[in-house]
Amino acid sequence: MSKPTLAVVGATGAVGTVMLDILTNRPDVWGEIRLIASPRSAGKVLRVRGEDVVVQALSPEAFDGVDVAMFDVPDEVSAEWAPIAVSRGAVAVDNSGAFRMDPDVPLVVPECNPEQVRNRPKGIISNPNCTTLSMMAAMGALHREYGLRELVVASYQAVSGAGVVGSDRLYDEVQALAGDRTIGTVAGDVRKAVPDLSESPFPAPIAFNVVPWAGSLKQDGWASEELKVRDESRKILGIPDLKVSATCVRVPVITTHSLAVHATFEGAVTVEAARAILEAAPTVVLLDDPAEGVFPTPADVVGTDPTYVGRIRQALDFPNTLDLFVCGDNLRKGAALNTAEIAELVAVEFTG
Amino acid sequence: MSKPTLAVVGATGAVGTVMLDILTNRPDVWGEIRLIASPRSAGKVLRVRGEDVVVQALSPEAFDGVDVAMFDVPDEVSAEWAPIAVSRGAVAVDNSGAFRMDPDVPLVVPECNPEQVRNRPKGIISNPNCTTLSMMAAMGALHREYGLRELVVASYQAVSGAGVVGSDRLYDEVQALAGDRTIGTVAGDVRKAVPDLSESPFPAPIAFNVVPWAGSLKQDGWASEELKVRDESRKILGIPDLKVSATCVRVPVITTHSLAVHATFEGAVTVEAARAILEAAPTVVLLDDPAEGVFPTPADVVGTDPTYVGRIRQALDFPNTLDLFVCGDNLRKGAALNTAEIAELVAVEFTG
Repeated sequence: MSKPTLAVVGATGAVGTVMLDILTNRPDVWGEIRLIASPRSAGKVLRVRGEDVVVQALSPEAFDGVDVAMFDVPDEVSAEWAPIAVSRGAVAVDNSGAFRMDPDVPLVVPECNPEQVRNRPKGIISNPNCTTLSMMAAMGALHREYGLRELVVASYQAVSGAGVVGSDRLYDEVQALAGDRTIGTVAGDVRKAVPDLSESPFPAPIAFNVVPWAGSLKQDGWASEELKVRDESRKILGIPDLKVSATCVRVPVITTHSLAVHATFEGAVTVEAARAILEAAPTVVLLDDPAEGVFPTPADVVGTDPTYVGRIRQALDFPNTLDLFVCGDNLRKGAALNTAEIAELVAVEFTG
Repeated sequence: MSKPTLAVVGATGAVGTVMLDILTNRPDVWGEIRLIASPRSAGKVLRVRGEDVVVQALSPEAFDGVDVAMFDVPDEVSAEWAPIAVSRGAVAVDNSGAFRMDPDVPLVVPECNPEQVRNRPKGIISNPNCTTLSMMAAMGALHREYGLRELVVASYQAVSGAGVVGSDRLYDEVQALAGDRTIGTVAGDVRKAVPDLSESPFPAPIAFNVVPWAGSLKQDGWASEELKVRDESRKILGIPDLKVSATCVRVPVITTHSLAVHATFEGAVTVEAARAILEAAPTVVLLDDPAEGVFPTPADVVGTDPTYVGRIRQALDFPNTLDLFVCGDNLRKGAALNTAEIAELVAVEFTG
């Protein structure tokens, strides 16, 4: 059989840009790669696999002949257009929140539940939220061995999780504040000195600050991002009664989400055994030797594919519990890479 | 009786500088205020209560006539000099880690255990670590009502917790990186672009980064700061079997520590009742209306005295448990202010 045709919808966004880099460097399983974006971006020329490709405007016809269509677009665009892609014969791999909790749409992390890729009655497969994804490869490996029961998570989320506008905003704020060696010492001084906050994707200054808010307001004071960590972890790991509490906090980091994870298992767990499991996991890198200053930080791992784990400690007062720190590039494994990996699992169906 | 004499040891440091501001603005319970520092800083003139005061060199004689001596100096300096101050007749209020876990030294937060101030067989009273202190006023109020059983904490710690060198380092790194609108996108680019890391108080770049390390390495991979949160919370709240797991992470914020807290109580707890308790606590400010963008952030509360609490949610899967976000100025309530408050409790003994 010939190689399948891939469409990348949202090719010009933050995730789309990383996707083109990933497609250029992954094994070349695709025939044609078609780039699709909003009419505003149509006609732009982008480079993928060393070739110039002209971006096409989103339209039903753009999906004709497409075998797999990846979507990296806002929820409402995916909700409308993924079914259209399917109706034109494509399998849709969607990185929005539109279908993730739909019982007829699998939510896939190849390290955790690759078999779910074929269980797609609607022709749609969802890619998880970037915060959840940042820990799934590591937590999945530990879950298979010990049986995960509870997760208490605090996030340190990068600004590019809010798209290109998020990164631009942090660069703008830093530029406005740099050189002032008293900034951040009086209540409100940062708020006064940054560019107009009404133009920010964040609800407070993000330079010299942390902001305990990500997503939209859901019931009882929970942020959508926090509920995604709960709902998506349960679905991906196949643990419907997994206990989860997450607090999501934006930090002044461009790219790579970090999570402080307090994980309780059914079985007894030691740091040594957990380390061995994580070292054996193909897509996880263990960086855990604090005596030598070895632990993951966003600035040291951004732009790479693995999930990094460090600071593994046996909880002193909680049985069967580990405390650990995880870093993952929110645009790569947290978004584009996992989407590409799902699409490659589908591609196998075409090429055998 | 005449007003007691106060000595401020470490008057020229990060906490000492804030202390002089606090002493200038608190009720004036002190007679003479004597400023003491290392011989290197002796002779400097500092302003307190609107008056110029010449800094004296640390010596046994410097404590003659002193009723209360506050220490904001490194552990080893306190360990040596607090007993000397006591031998000269002073009560020592120490903000180092030297005596905090000594069973003969009370560890005091006036909102939690003010009565312990008089229980000082060694003449020394300890002030807690800044990270623990950032949440004690709030957690103490909730504990009195509901009986605290478990704490899972992730910190977002400001650089000034490492002293003036910490703030200087973040300003230096930001200045070196500002204007580069690709920084933070490739592994190691920040590390290459910041000034010599061997001169940093932090083990990794802190601008455009978060660093999951604070303090020194203790047993089984725990950082000293994380164990302090456990040990000191137990002692302050008088709960010897309190279950605690903490992960301490440094963030690019100048001043004000934040904590994501997952707190489990003996009794049933509702968000509404917790809000009412925190609103009634005199030194706690509730900032909790996410629909209106109201939650505490370091940049909005730095330089002020209260403990700020927001994002209060009932844990969906954990009984009797609240998730919340706390901010407190690590140099004020986290250090100088609480020390001043302890010293004022002692001053009452002199003035009646």
